[in-house]
Amino acid sequence: MRVKHKKWAAPLIAAHPEKMVTNAEEVKGKWQERFEKLQPIHLEVGMGKGQFIIGMAKAHPEVNFIGLEIQETVAAIALKKALTEDLPNLQLVCGDGSDITNYFEPHEIDRMYLNFSDPWPKKRHAKRRLTYHTFLDGYQTILKEQGTIELKTDNMGFFEFSLESMNNYGMKFDGVWLDLHNSDENEHNVETEYEQKFAAKGQPIYKLTAHFA
Amino acid sequence: MRVKHKKWAAPLIAAHPEKMVTNAEEVKGKWQERFEKLQPIHLEVGMGKGQFIIGMAKAHPEVNFIGLEIQETVAAIALKKALTEDLPNLQLVCGDGSDITNYFEPHEIDRMYLNFSDPWPKKRHAKRRLTYHTFLDGYQTILKEQGTIELKTDNMGFFEFSLESMNNYGMKFDGVWLDLHNSDENEHNVETEYEQKFAAKGQPIYKLTAHFA
Ligand SMILES: C[S@@+](CC[C@H](N)C(=O)[O-])C[C@H]1O[C@@H](n2cnc3c(N)ncnc32)[C@H](O)[C@@H]1O
Ligand SMILES: C[S@@+](CC[C@H](N)C(=O)[O-])C[C@H]1O[C@@H](n2cnc3c(N)ncnc32)[C@H](O)[C@@H]1O
Repeated sequence: MRVKHKKWAAPLIAAHPEKMVTNAEEVKGKWQERFEKLQPIHLEVGMGKGQFIIGMAKAHPEVNFIGLEIQETVAAIALKKALTEDLPNLQLVCGDGSDITNYFEPHEIDRMYLNFSDPWPKKRHAKRRLTYHTFLDGYQTILKEQGTIELKTDNMGFFEFSLESMNNYGMKFDGVWLDLHNSDENEHNVETEYEQKFAAKGQPIYKLTAHFA
Repeated sequence: MRVKHKKWAAPLIAAHPEKMVTNAEEVKGKWQERFEKLQPIHLEVGMGKGQFIIGMAKAHPEVNFIGLEIQETVAAIALKKALTEDLPNLQLVCGDGSDITNYFEPHEIDRMYLNFSDPWPKKRHAKRRLTYHTFLDGYQTILKEQGTIELKTDNMGFFEFSLESMNNYGMKFDGVWLDLHNSDENEHNVETEYEQKFAAKGQPIYKLTAHFA
């Protein structure tokens, strides 16, 4: 997701520390304190402009959601949108998915979402893919035991890689969909921005849910 | 694969015990004796009319191949085709894939192929799918340690099921292809009859290779 630098991004983030965290290290182990209710926490890494995580927070008041995004301007666009809603079960973070073990205590998270992650198609960039085994190490650490990852993508190469990588890591698959939008699983699906764009072009959307064994 | 009953099928099979085995239980543990050379044995379950296994036997004289088919008439069509070739590294079997542990000793097989297996789309028929865990039990028994299964299909539901089933069984994926014919993996691909038919219609061909851990 490439966006132009916006001058208002940093000031907006600075003005809303109650909604957007920029020092996630300091909140480590204390995320529940930032929500109104003590309930399971779901984390999206790479939330982009936040359409999915805001939609999920609206649809599931019984879950606390955290959206993480590395690009400041993109995170600020998500923040702007979130501020128009009254969502005490939503927190946003500007930070790096490579650092999540510094942001969350072991077992602090109940479920994770990876939506339309950058595919990094070149082999020499495989390490940057968010399903590379070094990232899975971090996810396993912060997730509860048997913690689940839900992944959606339109990118065939990234999906093939993720199936292999998560299988080789020893994760157990709960469900695989090779055409989500024409499946039963779509009934409660909350679409991401990228998902809408690619589905409109007629591309199949792939989904995988898996847990650490 | 539905074919009309052919009167010549049974007599042709009876006339060629050197090429087609109908009493596989009695050959159990002695398959190498039926080949000219002592070399790894690859087994296809559900060979249909034999296009793939004959093509493989031609392309790989360094491997011994066995093609198994449950329908007598279909097996006879494969036999007819095989008899037009000089392939000392090919044996055919008329028999049932559910019975393979009666046909082969533990570790007698080096690699298995499942090509365009009947998908059995109804949930209540899941047990009949050739990647249901009870079939995987049999494959694990007859395969060498770390033995590999190669699966190809055009059927999305069957592929989704097989990914889940083989993953949940603890198998490790070596490769996943969601559009085999537009991938590097296609270079040495030997096409099956069904594969040609479905690929001609523009359907993607799925492939999975996996081994027992
Ligand atoms: C292709 S976009 C998809 C956005 C959104 N999930 C969707 O489906 O519409 C990927 C997003 O992940 C973010 N991202 C990439 N690497 C990240 C990382 N290490 N930590 C956090 N976010 C990351 C990018 O900045 C980008 O906004
Ligand atoms: C859809 S056809 C595919 C044939 C061939 N593999 C191809 O790709 O062209 C499936 C074949 O598997 C055979 N088959 C189904 N169940 C079987 C079993 N339990 N044992 C052996 N063959 C079986 C069927 O009779 C049929 O010929």
